[in-house]
Amino acid sequence: MRAVDIIARKRDGFELTTEEIAYFIEHFTSGDIPDYQASALLMAIVLRGMTRPETAALTLAMAHSGDTLDLSDITDYAVDKHSSGGVGDKTSLVVLPLVAAFGVPVAKMSGRGLGYSGGTLDKLEAIRGYRVHLTGEEFRDLAKRNGFVLAGQSLSLAPADGKLYALRDVTATVPSLPLIASSIMSKKLAAGARGLVLDVKAGSGAFMATVEDARQLAQAMVDIGVDAGRDVIALLSDMNQPLGHAVGNALEVAESIYTLRGEGPADFTTHSLAVAEAMLRLAGRGVKWTDPAQTRAELEARLHDGSALAVFRKLVEAQGGDTAMVDDPALLPTAAIIEGVTAPAGGVVQGVDAFGVARAAFDLGAGREKKTDDIDPAVGVQVFVKVGETVRVGQKIAEIHANAAARVEGARAELLRAISLGTTPHDPLPLFYGEIEGYGSTARH
Amino acid sequence: MRAVDIIARKRDGFELTTEEIAYFIEHFTSGDIPDYQASALLMAIVLRGMTRPETAALTLAMAHSGDTLDLSDITDYAVDKHSSGGVGDKTSLVVLPLVAAFGVPVAKMSGRGLGYSGGTLDKLEAIRGYRVHLTGEEFRDLAKRNGFVLAGQSLSLAPADGKLYALRDVTATVPSLPLIASSIMSKKLAAGARGLVLDVKAGSGAFMATVEDARQLAQAMVDIGVDAGRDVIALLSDMNQPLGHAVGNALEVAESIYTLRGEGPADFTTHSLAVAEAMLRLAGRGVKWTDPAQTRAELEARLHDGSALAVFRKLVEAQGGDTAMVDDPALLPTAAIIEGVTAPAGGVVQGVDAFGVARAAFDLGAGREKKTDDIDPAVGVQVFVKVGETVRVGQKIAEIHANAAARVEGARAELLRAISLGTTPHDPLPLFYGEIEGYGSTARH
Repeated sequence: MRAVDIIARKRDGFELTTEEIAYFIEHFTSGDIPDYQASALLMAIVLRGMTRPETAALTLAMAHSGDTLDLSDITDYAVDKHSSGGVGDKTSLVVLPLVAAFGVPVAKMSGRGLGYSGGTLDKLEAIRGYRVHLTGEEFRDLAKRNGFVLAGQSLSLAPADGKLYALRDVTATVPSLPLIASSIMSKKLAAGARGLVLDVKAGSGAFMATVEDARQLAQAMVDIGVDAGRDVIALLSDMNQPLGHAVGNALEVAESIYTLRGEGPADFTTHSLAVAEAMLRLAGRGVKWTDPAQTRAELEARLHDGSALAVFRKLVEAQGGDTAMVDDPALLPTAAIIEGVTAPAGGVVQGVDAFGVARAAFDLGAGREKKTDDIDPAVGVQVFVKVGETVRVGQKIAEIHANAAARVEGARAELLRAISLGTTPHDPLPLFYGEIEGYGSTARH
Repeated sequence: MRAVDIIARKRDGFELTTEEIAYFIEHFTSGDIPDYQASALLMAIVLRGMTRPETAALTLAMAHSGDTLDLSDITDYAVDKHSSGGVGDKTSLVVLPLVAAFGVPVAKMSGRGLGYSGGTLDKLEAIRGYRVHLTGEEFRDLAKRNGFVLAGQSLSLAPADGKLYALRDVTATVPSLPLIASSIMSKKLAAGARGLVLDVKAGSGAFMATVEDARQLAQAMVDIGVDAGRDVIALLSDMNQPLGHAVGNALEVAESIYTLRGEGPADFTTHSLAVAEAMLRLAGRGVKWTDPAQTRAELEARLHDGSALAVFRKLVEAQGGDTAMVDDPALLPTAAIIEGVTAPAGGVVQGVDAFGVARAAFDLGAGREKKTDDIDPAVGVQVFVKVGETVRVGQKIAEIHANAAARVEGARAELLRAISLGTTPHDPLPLFYGEIEGYGSTARH
């Protein structure tokens, strides 16, 4: 088998075999196939597409390109979640303790964020002492002992994906549905989940701008999961405005703690309950948690009786974090300057541009452009209004948390541009646009 | 300007600007743009195509990527020829002396061959002592003094093309009309020709298998030439059977000498006269050599009066070659074993597969696979029959020139497979399928 022949077949629109795809990924990962051949194949894939069997084969080849996390001694059916990423998306911090509170094991290797705000690990590091770097042994030990661990990758999961992604970024080969879907799913398959909830966001603040694009991506990922023998529920959720109020690492941890206490913003609470319900539906495998309304009521009870927060507190304690910050979020890192943003006129909120809000937080220092950039955990913004709400002139609609006075006015201007007010009434935005399910696991049926 | 944005625009089907193409080629040549970005752009070009202005811009960018040969102190209108390559194609060895015999300056930097048989330089090296490596000064000096020089490249002509071609070869991005046409034309533009005759071959032994494909390639190259201000005549010629009889370096030199004496095979003689006529038509710029039939008669006279051969002899002498070999081709390197191949049955020649004949010569050692491979000048084959001819059983239809006894039977089997005999009459193959002209030079009009 020769790489150049595989490229030529894809160039000419033929369907690659599982063996050809596995050969290419194996030898690309090892360095035997150089970047310039991989980038030619990637461009051919962008322009020629991939069939469903090709996409599944690519995903599995990438999933098997490095270590895989075997959770079989902890549970015979691990569940995991993935979000396609959005502004103010701190869902994992609420959903995972909630699910763990039902006795469902959660052993998650998470990532950092590139772009406008931090990832789950960056947010957790806002808690003093929280250790995101665990050895493989510590990770397994905590998973077994506590049924809940949340840390960085101590394994090399799907290294082919990392290598391909870096190449796609500089060769204009990012926008391809099969490449995007297989990239996400390869890491999830390597991370050992048998049941997977995908939170696929659509809107101005998401990777997919339209619901239709998000639906196609969700369907492609569900198909991959089913073909790989997994069960998948994809939720199509809105990202035309930020989720919750807080954007910025410590601010998002605080908002998560309030939500775990049952005192969070309505949209973020409802969103988290929906994701948790889907995870429990998978974990119950048609035996338990089969009635979504009933499950949601049970989940809500865990927010109000303090048991979900207790699970989160135990996680923080087990990983060396300062539990006082969980008990009193006011102890989390705080910015030197906190300034309100008030409505310049009364009216109805016509839009809260998630992308603009993200840029305001980024300009304050909440995100990173390069892997090596530092994040300031204390800075960020809060946006208190949602599309369709009525505001009075002078009402505080947002808040800036800054550590540099020079950046405050830029953030204020950005927020005022992002929050558009008008005189005509506006319907609130939906939280979800639908759900796609697929079951590939025999465990379920 | 960023390489990744240029790739993205071609990926999405937009027309690149001259500035974008020049930027990409300049920085690719210097090494600032890595191979993996170039191969992604190449694949996007293969699948999206290039417009005529894009193709002209690419060709000029490559032509200007290194040295250019300035012949303006030798002639104000240099003419050159290019062949797309075929089996038994020794046309340059006859055409260039013929044209030089009319006082038209010929200063040509030629190449070696990769594949089934040698290039013009390899053939010339069959003549003992012939120096293909000249310094730039020697080259110019001979051009001025004798009006005829034929050597290897002492300049770095269109290095971007060489670098891109090496990349295309291993990334399955060879088959693209604009890339093929611009690759050929970039070297010709850098070599200083103002008038150019292209010998574009179609058939089983050529790069382009069909006349229609060859016509499209020829049209694309003529368009490039016109857009670059040059005059171009493209001849569409047949390559379904070998040209002349000889395939192999010394054998082809001998056949060229016989042809320069007026004793060459009919097809090769006619072919050479046509190419030479087109070169003279360009060199005459509408003032001289305007009547093709008249020019052809004058050319033929130069074969029979010995003047064309005298020009060739002078070339060989000037570049240090053994003129005794020109006077008596029997002195050229000779193979140890010369064996005839006879017709196994009587009949009509239905086909002489040029590719099969080339493979027979290659297996005897006449060609090279890698740049560093050695060529044996003495070995090769002769095929004495043409499609449509009638042969008797036992008639000698071909000849094997070998230096290894073990290779003779393989070559014989290959030749017998290549020469197919049948009982039905068959028309001879045409030598040419047409001509495409284009004039971009103001010198002409």
